[in-house]
Amino acid sequence: MDVQRNLAQRINVGDALTRSAAARPDQLAIVDGDRSLTYARFDAWVNRLAHGLLARGYAVGDALALAAGNSAEFLAVYYACAKTGVVCVPINLGWRPDEVAYVLRHSQARGIVVETQLAVTIAEAVAQVPAVTDVVLAVGLAHDDPEVLTSEVTDVASMTLTDLATDDESTPEVGIDDRAALSYLYTSGTTSFPKGVVGTHLAIHLESMSAALDSGWNASDRFVAMMPMFHTAQLNAFCTPAVIVGATIHVHRGFDPERFLTTIERERITQVFGLPVMYRTALEHPGFGDRDLSSLRRAVYAMAPMPEAQIKACLEGYRCDFALLFGQTEMSPITTLFRPEHQLSHVGAVGTPLTGVQVGIMGPDGELLGPGEQGEIVYRGPSTMQEYLHDEAATATAFAHGWFHSGDVGRFGEDGVLWFADRTKDVIKTGGENVASLEVERAVYDAEPDVSEVVVVGLPHARWSEAITAVVVPKPGTEVDPDGLIAALKKRLDGYKVPKAVIVVDEFPRTSTGKIQKNVVRDTHAMHYGGR
Amino acid sequence: MDVQRNLAQRINVGDALTRSAAARPDQLAIVDGDRSLTYARFDAWVNRLAHGLLARGYAVGDALALAAGNSAEFLAVYYACAKTGVVCVPINLGWRPDEVAYVLRHSQARGIVVETQLAVTIAEAVAQVPAVTDVVLAVGLAHDDPEVLTSEVTDVASMTLTDLATDDESTPEVGIDDRAALSYLYTSGTTSFPKGVVGTHLAIHLESMSAALDSGWNASDRFVAMMPMFHTAQLNAFCTPAVIVGATIHVHRGFDPERFLTTIERERITQVFGLPVMYRTALEHPGFGDRDLSSLRRAVYAMAPMPEAQIKACLEGYRCDFALLFGQTEMSPITTLFRPEHQLSHVGAVGTPLTGVQVGIMGPDGELLGPGEQGEIVYRGPSTMQEYLHDEAATATAFAHGWFHSGDVGRFGEDGVLWFADRTKDVIKTGGENVASLEVERAVYDAEPDVSEVVVVGLPHARWSEAITAVVVPKPGTEVDPDGLIAALKKRLDGYKVPKAVIVVDEFPRTSTGKIQKNVVRDTHAMHYGGR
Repeated sequence: MDVQRNLAQRINVGDALTRSAAARPDQLAIVDGDRSLTYARFDAWVNRLAHGLLARGYAVGDALALAAGNSAEFLAVYYACAKTGVVCVPINLGWRPDEVAYVLRHSQARGIVVETQLAVTIAEAVAQVPAVTDVVLAVGLAHDDPEVLTSEVTDVASMTLTDLATDDESTPEVGIDDRAALSYLYTSGTTSFPKGVVGTHLAIHLESMSAALDSGWNASDRFVAMMPMFHTAQLNAFCTPAVIVGATIHVHRGFDPERFLTTIERERITQVFGLPVMYRTALEHPGFGDRDLSSLRRAVYAMAPMPEAQIKACLEGYRCDFALLFGQTEMSPITTLFRPEHQLSHVGAVGTPLTGVQVGIMGPDGELLGPGEQGEIVYRGPSTMQEYLHDEAATATAFAHGWFHSGDVGRFGEDGVLWFADRTKDVIKTGGENVASLEVERAVYDAEPDVSEVVVVGLPHARWSEAITAVVVPKPGTEVDPDGLIAALKKRLDGYKVPKAVIVVDEFPRTSTGKIQKNVVRDTHAMHYGGR
Repeated sequence: MDVQRNLAQRINVGDALTRSAAARPDQLAIVDGDRSLTYARFDAWVNRLAHGLLARGYAVGDALALAAGNSAEFLAVYYACAKTGVVCVPINLGWRPDEVAYVLRHSQARGIVVETQLAVTIAEAVAQVPAVTDVVLAVGLAHDDPEVLTSEVTDVASMTLTDLATDDESTPEVGIDDRAALSYLYTSGTTSFPKGVVGTHLAIHLESMSAALDSGWNASDRFVAMMPMFHTAQLNAFCTPAVIVGATIHVHRGFDPERFLTTIERERITQVFGLPVMYRTALEHPGFGDRDLSSLRRAVYAMAPMPEAQIKACLEGYRCDFALLFGQTEMSPITTLFRPEHQLSHVGAVGTPLTGVQVGIMGPDGELLGPGEQGEIVYRGPSTMQEYLHDEAATATAFAHGWFHSGDVGRFGEDGVLWFADRTKDVIKTGGENVASLEVERAVYDAEPDVSEVVVVGLPHARWSEAITAVVVPKPGTEVDPDGLIAALKKRLDGYKVPKAVIVVDEFPRTSTGKIQKNVVRDTHAMHYGGR
């Protein structure tokens, strides 16, 4: 590699920080508790950490795990990796120690940055993976309790983040390819062996540019970052775009309605990102109506569409645009945005393609289907992941026919709006018919107002192969009558789509980010019909 | 190359058109005279041309020259090249036949697309380069005169653009690297051997994304394209960004004030790009005050800053934002934008960096200089050109110290705004001192209101090595007194910066795009002091 030309020409996510610091040194980059870092100070800190990694022999392609809640430190380590070509491996804080150990082993991590509160827990995982030689304690998080700095904690670590940093605040000059890996993001643990999604500088930067362009962000924007940074959505759909345009990130460690509303009001926040339940909770928070939220330009939500009543209540309460972000880790992650202008006219849709992403619907033989036809949702574009780490077979399957296969089923309307139907693997095959569980779930909500949440799964069945089954959680203080619900569904659905049984439960198993673990639901009730 | 993955992951300028056509098929892409092409129709046409190139054996890296005025055909051929990996070599319509022949030879062009009006002229150049086997006549331009289709013209061509196109409207599936060349753009002929700037898909797409992001463009924008498309600014700072966001391009073949104003009014144009003189001419056009130009969001100008009186008149007349675009072909091309908020407070500056471009000021030993210090303007960022074609030495020099060297001299103010001083090669070395000619030019405008235009050059001189000399064009109906002007300059400039002579001329020699040919001015008056 000609390093001189690489430095002048390349795509590198860390260079976006370098540029924003050069162009707007005094602009606030990160506010985390009582710490406020300008772009110049944040960049200087990142450079000191980057030189620390280089001094300890980290080279392009070496992996460094990162186990931390939302914090300035999280972003500083991420950008220090970007500037050195080191691969950042964010650890999902909901993983069990053996899952963490699997990821450390699979990613061949040389080290891990871990914040003090998590040190003892993570140590259990690190102990299983001798190849991890550096355990770097991130001391000084805004949320730190000094009490936790016991010898038990400090014994775990080989150094602190402060030890890691050098005094050199200059931009490190390391040759790094456009398609070098910036991160291995392991897809969330709903399957036993998570896959490592290799995200390149090129893919993540292009997705970030598209997110900023498509949403019209600029340096005057102020973001609240409260969704987990170890997930691609918070990290690459909001934080990296914010750094590209030189905007300000207010770091929250999770969602607290009082702090959320106070921050919007006091800091004149313009952009927020959360789950539908967070917007609902804040809306019902005492004193919501007295808040001045007039600075808000857009509230983005993810994971699930909002029912019509809820989106109406949100639009009325927050008086800003709402948009749903749809995508997946492999796409860095945004693929479509369900845009403000469609929120009320296309309830339940997932929107139109992000600039820079081509969305197709593919039939079983690799043929592209037209509007109205249902098939697998496939993607093309420069924000597509590079590959699954150490998994050529899965990579080849994912890129069959020259498109990235999402594993989602959907269709386009004639007006170009995408509708998500289901996960391919969640399609229920019953008596020779394919049934999209989402369609049945929608009918359940429609038929029984007392249902709080429903999951429709196919359970092993001697006659039907898979029997359509609705597992429901009633709203607090109500009851759901299975027979009455089935009767009501018979009026709404084709006969073969009507659940063979309704199972009432108190709650669903969830991932650390609140996603219902449909596979666990399926396993729990696998013997409901006595098996196949 | 794994073509399946390349198709799903790559950066390619042509893919941006494919995406916009998929997402917004019925949106207007191009209006050229009485032809209106939706994105679906434009994309289908481009695909038919692309398949035609493939059918004739054109492969990734083959060069195809393009000699055409602004037209839908120009853009169709450019995008057909993009989709096939063929390198487009736009021909400057101001070049002499031997200059065209030089470029055809240097770029190793296999063919040339030429519009009917230019066929006979271009044939003279093609005759000198036997390697050019295909001469494709672009018949059917909106501006074509059918009379020119004489046998003299048709004899020149081996086929027409209509012959080239196949019936296949599908997206061609050709594996093309991110850093494959999309164009060789030859820097304008003010030197005897123009350099071929290799612009990659990556660089041009990233610059286009930055231009769109920085200006807040979206699908509702409508552009007038009246500057020459064979230049990077019109092509890559406006046309390719417009295609990325799915906006509409109204093609004009040059500037006509009546048509310009009528188009803005009738088509509700939002974005225009021209030279300062064009805005001034339109402003003085009869009936300007009666026009409804309220759709205009931004008018961009280039090549030269506007004096304060002119920018004030423009802001008052057009009632939209004005911005200066600064950059160069090697940067694809925008590097800084002199933004609306600075137009009146920083008259004469060239602005602040484009998102995605880092701008530095470098001293003679490669050291970066701080605010207020003058040095060479250097750049970093993914929109930087790949190299100079067949010129490793010039490429290595251009990328010394890990930055692209612009050849421009400037400084940053403390507020981060960039001021252009001069071209390095235009710096006048007089009596051991370096003098920026721009500073002297500004003083001339300030001292003598009757000066319409001034060029300050260093001319060979026995004592001073180079003698500072002001060559001036007086305003119509006025006269400039050389002695009086020199006396007035003595009050405004350090003694060594005062011109040794003032030469009054009627007009300046210009390039085809209106740039003053400073080198020709210098050569014309080289013996003014009798030589060195």
